[in-house]
Amino acid sequence: MTAPPELLYLLAGDKKDFAEALASLQPVDVAAALNELEPKAAAKVLCALPFDLIVQLFDEPELDRRVELFEGLDAKSAAPVIEAMAADQQADLFRELLPSERTRLLKTLTPATRDALRGLLEYPPELAGGLMTTEFMAVPADWTVQRALERIREVARNKETVYAVYVTDPVDQRLVHVVSLRELMLADPAAAVRSVGGARVPITIPPDMNREDVARLISKYNLLAVPVVNGDRRVIGIVTVDDVIDAMIREQTKDIQQLGGVEALDVPYTQIGFFAMIRKRAGWLAALFLGEMLTATAMGYFEGEISKAVVLALFVPLIISSGGNSGSQATSLIIRAMALRELTLRDWWRVALRELPSGLALGSILGVIGFVRIVLWQQWGLYDYGAHWVLVAFTVSAALVGVVTFGSLTGSMLPFLLRRLGFDPASASAPFVATLVDVTGLVIYFSVALLILRGTLL
Amino acid sequence: MTAPPELLYLLAGDKKDFAEALASLQPVDVAAALNELEPKAAAKVLCALPFDLIVQLFDEPELDRRVELFEGLDAKSAAPVIEAMAADQQADLFRELLPSERTRLLKTLTPATRDALRGLLEYPPELAGGLMTTEFMAVPADWTVQRALERIREVARNKETVYAVYVTDPVDQRLVHVVSLRELMLADPAAAVRSVGGARVPITIPPDMNREDVARLISKYNLLAVPVVNGDRRVIGIVTVDDVIDAMIREQTKDIQQLGGVEALDVPYTQIGFFAMIRKRAGWLAALFLGEMLTATAMGYFEGEISKAVVLALFVPLIISSGGNSGSQATSLIIRAMALRELTLRDWWRVALRELPSGLALGSILGVIGFVRIVLWQQWGLYDYGAHWVLVAFTVSAALVGVVTFGSLTGSMLPFLLRRLGFDPASASAPFVATLVDVTGLVIYFSVALLILRGTLL
Repeated sequence: MTAPPELLYLLAGDKKDFAEALASLQPVDVAAALNELEPKAAAKVLCALPFDLIVQLFDEPELDRRVELFEGLDAKSAAPVIEAMAADQQADLFRELLPSERTRLLKTLTPATRDALRGLLEYPPELAGGLMTTEFMAVPADWTVQRALERIREVARNKETVYAVYVTDPVDQRLVHVVSLRELMLADPAAAVRSVGGARVPITIPPDMNREDVARLISKYNLLAVPVVNGDRRVIGIVTVDDVIDAMIREQTKDIQQLGGVEALDVPYTQIGFFAMIRKRAGWLAALFLGEMLTATAMGYFEGEISKAVVLALFVPLIISSGGNSGSQATSLIIRAMALRELTLRDWWRVALRELPSGLALGSILGVIGFVRIVLWQQWGLYDYGAHWVLVAFTVSAALVGVVTFGSLTGSMLPFLLRRLGFDPASASAPFVATLVDVTGLVIYFSVALLILRGTLL
Repeated sequence: MTAPPELLYLLAGDKKDFAEALASLQPVDVAAALNELEPKAAAKVLCALPFDLIVQLFDEPELDRRVELFEGLDAKSAAPVIEAMAADQQADLFRELLPSERTRLLKTLTPATRDALRGLLEYPPELAGGLMTTEFMAVPADWTVQRALERIREVARNKETVYAVYVTDPVDQRLVHVVSLRELMLADPAAAVRSVGGARVPITIPPDMNREDVARLISKYNLLAVPVVNGDRRVIGIVTVDDVIDAMIREQTKDIQQLGGVEALDVPYTQIGFFAMIRKRAGWLAALFLGEMLTATAMGYFEGEISKAVVLALFVPLIISSGGNSGSQATSLIIRAMALRELTLRDWWRVALRELPSGLALGSILGVIGFVRIVLWQQWGLYDYGAHWVLVAFTVSAALVGVVTFGSLTGSMLPFLLRRLGFDPASASAPFVATLVDVTGLVIYFSVALLILRGTLL
């Protein structure tokens, strides 16, 4: 993400009259340009910008080093900038501040902002309560359409969205109805807002719903925003579609990194420090290495067989990697289906009943290819697998069927097991499955060999 | 995704008075209930529903078997349903129809619908042109705000969204400005629409932009819709945020399945047929197997060394899997960073310069663990690695450093290479990288062994 060079020039230079150039830019592009500058230069440029743009920049999740830049603002402008920011972005910024700084700043805010912010900070950022913003548009159910539209005109400037209007009971403030601005504009101005639009039950979410489920709901019902209600069905905030998209992108990044066997990175690859990255990778890599050490133990257990029939060792990587590959396929299919809620915990046996024949079929395909390979190499004189080469070919084939079937079953069941134990099923990374399957694959292979080759090679 | 049982009962039963029950439901939930029914029952229920709901159902991408259900409608209602559907959903439905059916249906439509539909069908569904819809709100730049608002009230019912209004040049119809409905409502009714809102250059996309880039753009600028313009800067359609979310979810599913080494499934895991799934998995699995056969060749090449020092064989799975794991980590990090456009092709050398020391550091960590493991097992009498066990430990350690470094480099460079060759970098699946690294890992391991152990074990 690089900003156009002219923009960098404009920002870095000391020109005072770049107001016009700035006006034609989107705030997110100005943020990208600031991200490219040295910290000191960025802070200097920021202070020279118009107040409204500063607020818009701090409202941009794409602005890097928000805390540092914020701390670089002079004391007089910090509080007004916070006051003018969207509530969800205020909360995000506060989450990053040091506790001491946080307490100090809270004191400078108006009581209303302070209370709203404290409410939002109660929730972690992965839950609806941590994603939501409090600037929504609510009107009592007994208002007329015209009065509601007038109110929207008055307060629109300070609301995150005015395209969804939350209609509440005039007495107890519970949510009774949701109308869109489009429906209000088309309705009879004298009608009561409660009567506008369909009679559908409003879609709401609790503050502890996780961001994946919020994203799925917003996407399923094609919403621009969804109201977060407390136990009394009072609206305490809304989650808007743009926050959900950002959350989806973060979630997707986490899933792909985990599937690759890395702890989720939190910051872009291009920005993470060398040692931070090593830490994120070394943990899983070392854990997998420790697990994989069991292969050395298993191989040691069969050392006698290997020294009798070195030909067996030749196919070890081929056989165990095939198990790992089929396991990796199964795990990625199941992790995704679970994330999309196509599968739940209780479907585990349906999946097992499906993966068993799939594994057998896939293993048989590889078994046939493996058999043909050994026969051809032997016949064409490319390699001599010894006098009992036919038995070796059978051993490899049978082991492939067993290992691939085991791989498919392990790969598909592991995400269920992890979820059952309360872990994220997406931690069942491809390397994790491969490691599990490698150790068992060796045992399967050498057991099959003992069965088929005893009395000949072994 | 299961529908509530009462709903199934209502739909499957022969009751005629479920109008009220239906009115309280979201169309997508009715679609989910229909999905649960047998094809014949679903078709029967569908025909009994009110016309508006039928249209809303066909506008739902979540309705399964859309084509079959559509073909079950009587000839008289088919054309009106199509006419009433959103243009992007019409196009999606038409893409699934048989060519003969398509031609027959096109004739029954009004010329305007037919032309719009033909325009949309020119683009594949992965591009902006295939995602867009033609029902957007455009007004000439010389209109007043009041006139624009009146027009919105007149036509809102038939537009995909009215929250973004596209302001065009009155003479040549080029896009000159975009205003939001919120801005229009806050503006002076007598002002010209051209003067409303900021002076920012409208964000537009060409019809051949792919869906990943459209999603990134909509998310970056927090848009509800983005206009698609042709070479003349005339708006030919808009892509709305809900279509982008659906596209993002499909893209994410594809990426995760590919990373796991499966061809993307197109249909949910729970719905794909047994043989279709075997086909999707067997292709990659067999290809990887053929590649992995090179390990048997490599092992055969070193058969003499193995028979002289069987102890070397014990560590083969441990060493090659560590290379595969580090490669899988690197490839998932790079694939994701490329998908987020944090990295482009020309960054390859920056990444290589970063992955080289990372691989060395990670390899050294594993090398130390591996060395300690062998020393401890030998000292504690858990296993006897022979007289030259110290040299064996050095061999394993040095090989780990080499293999893990090679894995990190291969895993990180492969996505760049694939993109350079015009393939999707996400096809660099974890199993693909592991296979590449396995073969080379063996060569590295045995070469290191020859270097260290020549004259002693070898």
